[in-house]
Amino acid sequence: MSIKLIYASPETDADLLHWGGVFTCDPFLAFAVEGQRYAVSNGLEIDEMRRNSKFDKILLPEDLTDQEDQENPEIIDLIRCVYEKFPGNDLVLPKNFPAYLILKLQQLGIEFSVIEDDFLSERSIKSPEEIDQIRKACAAISNAFARVRSILGKAEIRNQLLYYEGEAVTSERVRMEIARVCFEQDTIAKETIVACGKDAAFPHNRGEGPLKANEFIVVDIFPRLIESGYYGDMTRTFFKGQPSETQIKMYDVVKMVQSRAISEIHEGKNAKEIHEDNVKMFTKLGYPSTDSTGFFHSTGHGIGLELHENPSIGRRDHHLQIGEVVTVEPGLYYPEIGGVRIEDVVVVTKNGAELLSKFSYEWVV
Amino acid sequence: MSIKLIYASPETDADLLHWGGVFTCDPFLAFAVEGQRYAVSNGLEIDEMRRNSKFDKILLPEDLTDQEDQENPEIIDLIRCVYEKFPGNDLVLPKNFPAYLILKLQQLGIEFSVIEDDFLSERSIKSPEEIDQIRKACAAISNAFARVRSILGKAEIRNQLLYYEGEAVTSERVRMEIARVCFEQDTIAKETIVACGKDAAFPHNRGEGPLKANEFIVVDIFPRLIESGYYGDMTRTFFKGQPSETQIKMYDVVKMVQSRAISEIHEGKNAKEIHEDNVKMFTKLGYPSTDSTGFFHSTGHGIGLELHENPSIGRRDHHLQIGEVVTVEPGLYYPEIGGVRIEDVVVVTKNGAELLSKFSYEWVV
Repeated sequence: MSIKLIYASPETDADLLHWGGVFTCDPFLAFAVEGQRYAVSNGLEIDEMRRNSKFDKILLPEDLTDQEDQENPEIIDLIRCVYEKFPGNDLVLPKNFPAYLILKLQQLGIEFSVIEDDFLSERSIKSPEEIDQIRKACAAISNAFARVRSILGKAEIRNQLLYYEGEAVTSERVRMEIARVCFEQDTIAKETIVACGKDAAFPHNRGEGPLKANEFIVVDIFPRLIESGYYGDMTRTFFKGQPSETQIKMYDVVKMVQSRAISEIHEGKNAKEIHEDNVKMFTKLGYPSTDSTGFFHSTGHGIGLELHENPSIGRRDHHLQIGEVVTVEPGLYYPEIGGVRIEDVVVVTKNGAELLSKFSYEWVV
Repeated sequence: MSIKLIYASPETDADLLHWGGVFTCDPFLAFAVEGQRYAVSNGLEIDEMRRNSKFDKILLPEDLTDQEDQENPEIIDLIRCVYEKFPGNDLVLPKNFPAYLILKLQQLGIEFSVIEDDFLSERSIKSPEEIDQIRKACAAISNAFARVRSILGKAEIRNQLLYYEGEAVTSERVRMEIARVCFEQDTIAKETIVACGKDAAFPHNRGEGPLKANEFIVVDIFPRLIESGYYGDMTRTFFKGQPSETQIKMYDVVKMVQSRAISEIHEGKNAKEIHEDNVKMFTKLGYPSTDSTGFFHSTGHGIGLELHENPSIGRRDHHLQIGEVVTVEPGLYYPEIGGVRIEDVVVVTKNGAELLSKFSYEWVV
């Protein structure tokens, strides 16, 4: 048997947030042993933890140290106490466990192992409640897309630039509108991508300045639910004006590859195959890739309490399991044309993939 | 000389955010050596990093490994390359450096030291720009307090409960209003405390359910600026109805102790003395403390890119320095009466403390 132990803040550690289900600002010690999950809280947080967290037991430091008058014991002393209270169990730590505590454990001669893979591998299989949360975050994105399309639809074109309510439509302005809509839906959208023209040819360029007519506009939104911490993640590519043949073909190919990739998903399917099929399909259709043009990122990533978590749909073998939630987001990027990306979120089911994100793929507004 | 090295995401690591000044989602390697700050970015982020970050040089992995065709080298290989490129420098790591990389460094026989104190000690002295950011975050809080006071002011009392626009005024509803006002001011307010009556007797209880007349209502708001990541942190205690003598005296004593603590702050002053003076003053005025009643938390904490950072105004000796920014937040908590806390943010100056947070202390609305 083992003692799985975390020292972190749920604000920055998704494993700890998954265990406890509550956000608290300051780091604390938590561990799981013999089927029970424990948190060691200081006096300030204990009431909140007892009321709202999913831990089986909330301990005070003195419950471990048996020394009532010891104020603020060192974390390493608490870990030693945990180790001694549950003899015969191996100490198992996550890969991001703090360096200074590793060195202290070594000094004390306490043996431990560090897990380089997922610490809580159960996190990748989502419960119905978790799936609902991700669906809710995606619904916020759909509302934001509707707002973007409405702005682009009403915008006028002057000198190849877009104007709405008398002012230029910029990446910054659209980003702010998206943040507002997402906030109204109980989510925080940070680092939203609204990238037009050349900006869109770089997948992680957030975009800046005026949006242009007759150019692709990639909008990638990945908000987090304020209360629960679950993410949504969707991308749509919009276009204001009159697309050229080149642009129409590029959009259609990305859309086709994305739909096909989603249709390939089912329990047991190797994610690597899906990705490799996408690369081949793009090449076959006349869109070859280098390491910075064409399709040069992975097809998708797991999503949950982290924006990017396992499993990846990319270069590594992974057989998809029921309940895994992943994005499917192929794209094409060429500096002289711009970029197109289309992204949805699906949950793996027995027979296929169920979409958790829903918004129209009509792109020309 | 030394190589200071971080492997983290700026979303979760304030040191890295301080170096680079940009939020990116995924972790990356960064280091400082010979007066230059380097980031090692993957291809996806490099354009964004070159455009917006404060790093002196943005490298690609192949700039370090000298192997163009090596896709996604392991982080430990990149660290080894950094170590070899700058010979004669000690490798210095932060206390939260990931465990798995520590073990790999040990396996490779690469020597390093882990800093248990602040990794970037310069972070505690704020620049004028940083002080402006913290002031801006506090201004958002002032707007939120104004909104809270307006709601409480207009609320009607029925059966000792508060009603506004036909509905009960609850902790949840006030918290949502605060979040909305803060968002309009470019900040995110999470975990806001709106605690009334018995809830207010626990300093970190967020509060829930209907707010009551004739009870203290502690409102503690600590939003973060979306763009820059700086925090503000202020607390006011409000009251709707007719305070008793006991309540008036308790509020006045907290206010007096808070003002006095602020007036004691100046360059060179020992923070511990300020805290101890507060404890003594409360006791002298008839408010003794145990470990869960009276005044049982520290007087304040440093604030910046982290909500709680050094220096603390508490039990440890620390001589305040010009440019340090700290909260001053004494409080009193008794389950049978409730709680009062008043918190402001100040920057240490040559002659005293300059308030960065401004809002009236009128508490009865």
